[in-house]
Amino acid sequence: MTDLISNLQWRYATKKMLPGKTVPEEKVARIVEAIRLAPSANGLQPYQVIVVSNKALLEKLKVAGNGQTQIADCSHLLVFAAWDNYTPTRINYFFDLAIQVRGGGDEAWESYRQSLIKQFGMRDGKTNFEHAARQAYLGLGVALAAAAEEKVDSTPMEGFDPNQVDEILNLPALGLKSVALMPLGYRDAANDWLLKQAKVRRSSETFVIKRT
Amino acid sequence: MTDLISNLQWRYATKKMLPGKTVPEEKVARIVEAIRLAPSANGLQPYQVIVVSNKALLEKLKVAGNGQTQIADCSHLLVFAAWDNYTPTRINYFFDLAIQVRGGGDEAWESYRQSLIKQFGMRDGKTNFEHAARQAYLGLGVALAAAAEEKVDSTPMEGFDPNQVDEILNLPALGLKSVALMPLGYRDAANDWLLKQAKVRRSSETFVIKRT
Repeated sequence: MTDLISNLQWRYATKKMLPGKTVPEEKVARIVEAIRLAPSANGLQPYQVIVVSNKALLEKLKVAGNGQTQIADCSHLLVFAAWDNYTPTRINYFFDLAIQVRGGGDEAWESYRQSLIKQFGMRDGKTNFEHAARQAYLGLGVALAAAAEEKVDSTPMEGFDPNQVDEILNLPALGLKSVALMPLGYRDAANDWLLKQAKVRRSSETFVIKRT
Repeated sequence: MTDLISNLQWRYATKKMLPGKTVPEEKVARIVEAIRLAPSANGLQPYQVIVVSNKALLEKLKVAGNGQTQIADCSHLLVFAAWDNYTPTRINYFFDLAIQVRGGGDEAWESYRQSLIKQFGMRDGKTNFEHAARQAYLGLGVALAAAAEEKVDSTPMEGFDPNQVDEILNLPALGLKSVALMPLGYRDAANDWLLKQAKVRRSSETFVIKRT
């Protein structure tokens, strides 16, 4: 068994966290670093991660999250917020950054830049946002693996009012929309009903289709 | 540095793979097992993974993928295919499986089942498909971490015609739609231009927002 598989079996969607127990900052930093290194379509990284540890904000976000207790009991809440749209400015940022990092910026690079600006420009905002949201979920998958490696408990969460969360965190001003929450903390082993339950997954035979 | 971070720095979007070099089946199996263990909203796992190693199929899929060479040069192509919609049958499958695995099936469980059937039933098919696609991308993030841990090269790919891919693999009959491809293979170190390029990522300061 690989470390990743063993970590994925260790983790579970933690329902009850110990309110007093804080995840060390260096662990949070490594989890966020793994997300930052995750790939994304065309390398554009069309989302940001908001790390909320302010208790008053967490209490407000808990209300926007239908009262789910992990939102306030965690020590750090990761909010995955996708670009509300792709814009030339955002696309140019990446292309200019690549020139800074790699040098160059030849004709092929500029032609690639223009083709992306055109391609995203032709699509409606809703389609572009959904595309950005998918990239954020790719990062969420990496984040879950990173947290489990740190033996930090977490749970991927969708059951919240995105408009309320966006307003609490002033995301519209940044052109961002929240798509997923991921509280980081430690399981309350004595009081989490889900910890005692076996993981439910479809069998490999029903999940995988082989075309050999 | 954690193993995951080191693996994420090792991996890159492999552009040129060695056609003759085959990924051992046990490595492919462990990568797929990691995806199977990945969490998903409400635990429904609303996607499947098609593992294509048939050379004639790979050649056809390469055409649907705008001729990108990794599709035919890899030894195994993972096709992430999301449910085209959530249906009561699909939702019931998970709820019945959970009763098999965990026992029980009490009133709360049945009430949760009915609320999900109602919730997904009220949404249009396009919204439900997009929701399923996001879960598949979460699995894609886990898959990339798993492949890197195995020191197997891969690249997440979107630049293909999903309708053509669906037709080649008979996915409509299964109620599935392809959303991402991930070829598994080994880098052609001498001929892959991207291998020599530094990874381009936004700085932590621009990627992360802290609310302490």
